[in-house]
Amino acid sequence: MKPAGPIPPDYAADADGRLLIAGQPYDALIEAAGQTPLFVYDSGAVARRIARLRAAMPGIDIHYAMKANPHAGLLARIAAQVDGIDIASAGELRIAEAAGIMGDRISFAGPGKRDAELEAAILAGVTINLESETEAERALAIAARLGVRPRLAVRVNPDFELRGSGMRMGGGARPFGVDAARAVPLVRRLVDAGADWRGFHIYAGSQSLDAAALIEAQAAGIALAAALAEAAEASPPLVNLGGGFGIPYFSGDVALDVEAIGAALVEAVAARPAVLGDARFALELGRWLVGEAGVYLTRIVDRKTSHDQLFLITDGGLHHQLAASGNFGTVVRRNYPLAIAGRIGAPATEVATVCGCLCTPLDRLGDQLALPEAQVGDVVALFCAGAYGASASPAAFLAQGAAAELLV
Amino acid sequence: MKPAGPIPPDYAADADGRLLIAGQPYDALIEAAGQTPLFVYDSGAVARRIARLRAAMPGIDIHYAMKANPHAGLLARIAAQVDGIDIASAGELRIAEAAGIMGDRISFAGPGKRDAELEAAILAGVTINLESETEAERALAIAARLGVRPRLAVRVNPDFELRGSGMRMGGGARPFGVDAARAVPLVRRLVDAGADWRGFHIYAGSQSLDAAALIEAQAAGIALAAALAEAAEASPPLVNLGGGFGIPYFSGDVALDVEAIGAALVEAVAARPAVLGDARFALELGRWLVGEAGVYLTRIVDRKTSHDQLFLITDGGLHHQLAASGNFGTVVRRNYPLAIAGRIGAPATEVATVCGCLCTPLDRLGDQLALPEAQVGDVVALFCAGAYGASASPAAFLAQGAAAELLV
Repeated sequence: MKPAGPIPPDYAADADGRLLIAGQPYDALIEAAGQTPLFVYDSGAVARRIARLRAAMPGIDIHYAMKANPHAGLLARIAAQVDGIDIASAGELRIAEAAGIMGDRISFAGPGKRDAELEAAILAGVTINLESETEAERALAIAARLGVRPRLAVRVNPDFELRGSGMRMGGGARPFGVDAARAVPLVRRLVDAGADWRGFHIYAGSQSLDAAALIEAQAAGIALAAALAEAAEASPPLVNLGGGFGIPYFSGDVALDVEAIGAALVEAVAARPAVLGDARFALELGRWLVGEAGVYLTRIVDRKTSHDQLFLITDGGLHHQLAASGNFGTVVRRNYPLAIAGRIGAPATEVATVCGCLCTPLDRLGDQLALPEAQVGDVVALFCAGAYGASASPAAFLAQGAAAELLV
Repeated sequence: MKPAGPIPPDYAADADGRLLIAGQPYDALIEAAGQTPLFVYDSGAVARRIARLRAAMPGIDIHYAMKANPHAGLLARIAAQVDGIDIASAGELRIAEAAGIMGDRISFAGPGKRDAELEAAILAGVTINLESETEAERALAIAARLGVRPRLAVRVNPDFELRGSGMRMGGGARPFGVDAARAVPLVRRLVDAGADWRGFHIYAGSQSLDAAALIEAQAAGIALAAALAEAAEASPPLVNLGGGFGIPYFSGDVALDVEAIGAALVEAVAARPAVLGDARFALELGRWLVGEAGVYLTRIVDRKTSHDQLFLITDGGLHHQLAASGNFGTVVRRNYPLAIAGRIGAPATEVATVCGCLCTPLDRLGDQLALPEAQVGDVVALFCAGAYGASASPAAFLAQGAAAELLV
């Protein structure tokens, strides 16, 4: 038997043990969507997280990194509640514009921006987080050709890392941003070229559950921004401190103390050096805002035993939930939170491995879990499916088709 | 510095060092396709492999497992050269039918077949490799309702495994097929129900480069089929021995000796027990037929250093080539074969890490490779991209868009 991760606190059950998502029974949501597999996104759960952040860190800008979940309806609702949207491609810019988001609320980071993407972003008034000196020159040249004053920020590869981060994005040789040692001349170049220099983007890592490490990284980011601004003799309008807030996926994971982070950040901002006196500070969050707000529902197609082990085969799989299968950025496969959606709270009476329908041994949604008895036709709920799910999975694999998505 | 895998033998260069794919310069192919990133599939390289197999194992049926690469044009060419097509979903059935492939040449395996998929397959005359007793009952009931005599085979979870296999699909508790100990009553049930029983499907693993292990597994598969047929008092028309043939992806990998495998298989088939006297034998191959025949071409967008390490940032990435990034079924990331497409044969003068354009540290196509100098605008060729590439990658991730595909 292997443990499952913790079910997020947003979910409840009715008297019959049916999973409730945003207060609605799972089976009613499936009926409304017309099919499994189905992602359900609870916009109320997202709103609660935004409100919690606002309360924890008054005065700090909150951005949404839409790469975590680009669902158009969800994006539109989030955009009405946050201060900025971060995109990672011209494709995401098109989705954001279609959701009614103005370019001056958008910033664009990504190490391989093509000329056409830079042009689209400059024309839309997007702030471009420059990843290299050559990208800066390309952006300046394109802006000059277009006759537009570009909004440009400098993405800095910091000389520190986010300790305990799921993915390190700073603290060594990285493809992201320019090394801190080279940021000053780049800022000077932008200012001297007449660009609208928007400040710094400093991102040290992601998926951290260590509040102390995040507090330390944010303080280091502010100090780095101040040192760079002093040296460049230029005050940044905005310092984007990145995100890195993790969510509990696995057994033993403990949710992040965002109130402690917020208090420390507000204090650090209040005590900021004079050169940052006019700067705003932003956090750029994706996973933490939406990850726990999504549930993936998939129906059991077969129940079978092999060598005394029980397998529940579902109509979903890694083509929709690659990360949950353990095949995206993880070395050791561990179980996401998972439940039988019609038997919440029922005692576990058997140990089952939950597989997807793909003809590959990689397609495992839950490994040797203690579950209440489930039969063909029952529905498996896989939690923490709101970030890096539908859009970060190989939907065309084995031509099984995409999952449905429902916003509630 | 870390080594790259071996470039497959099908590729050459012209006098200027330009990569030739099927005799055509890479840049002409990009021009024809109109863009990078681009997959190029060399149908001639596939045809040579099929011919080599035919010569190595006369009398053995060759099937193509289209999950490896469902490109419609490639599929149509392969279908004209092999004895059967193996599908893994009703979606693949639709692609196969659109390519003009008749249902009686198709077999369907997969642990989570829905009723609608079984119905489509039965109506099309497809052979269904049954994965469980309950799937068998569903198929029989659907066929009775349709008034069709279904073509049904039994997928057996063998009691042996393919030694050294990249992915084990037999030899223990598995979601695939029925345990060998339960196969006999299932065959009897099918025969007694009046189904057109097509035989056995016995698949022990995949991506093996060990000829001796494959020979052993094939002999064990024949012996198992014979024992089951004896016990069931039913002679199978076909014994599908699966595939499992690997290709060299990584430094030190040595190509499989298919001639040795073929000789042993022909001998084992010649010496088969009497109960298999009328049986045909099939191998079901995907990766081995098409994997080396595909190249992924992606253009360098940025060239940058960070802490003295050189990064080449491309316009492609893991959204097209997930497996090459080390994020699909691999524990330790190793480099696929990779070259600068315009400088084949040029001496390596620098060490570079080749990244995709995605804003995630996972997006690495080549790690610390010794390469000739490459500049922005040059093209990187990533080999072994013909199987589990475009269709097995998260194409929607970060809204970067799909790669083009070109068949030559």
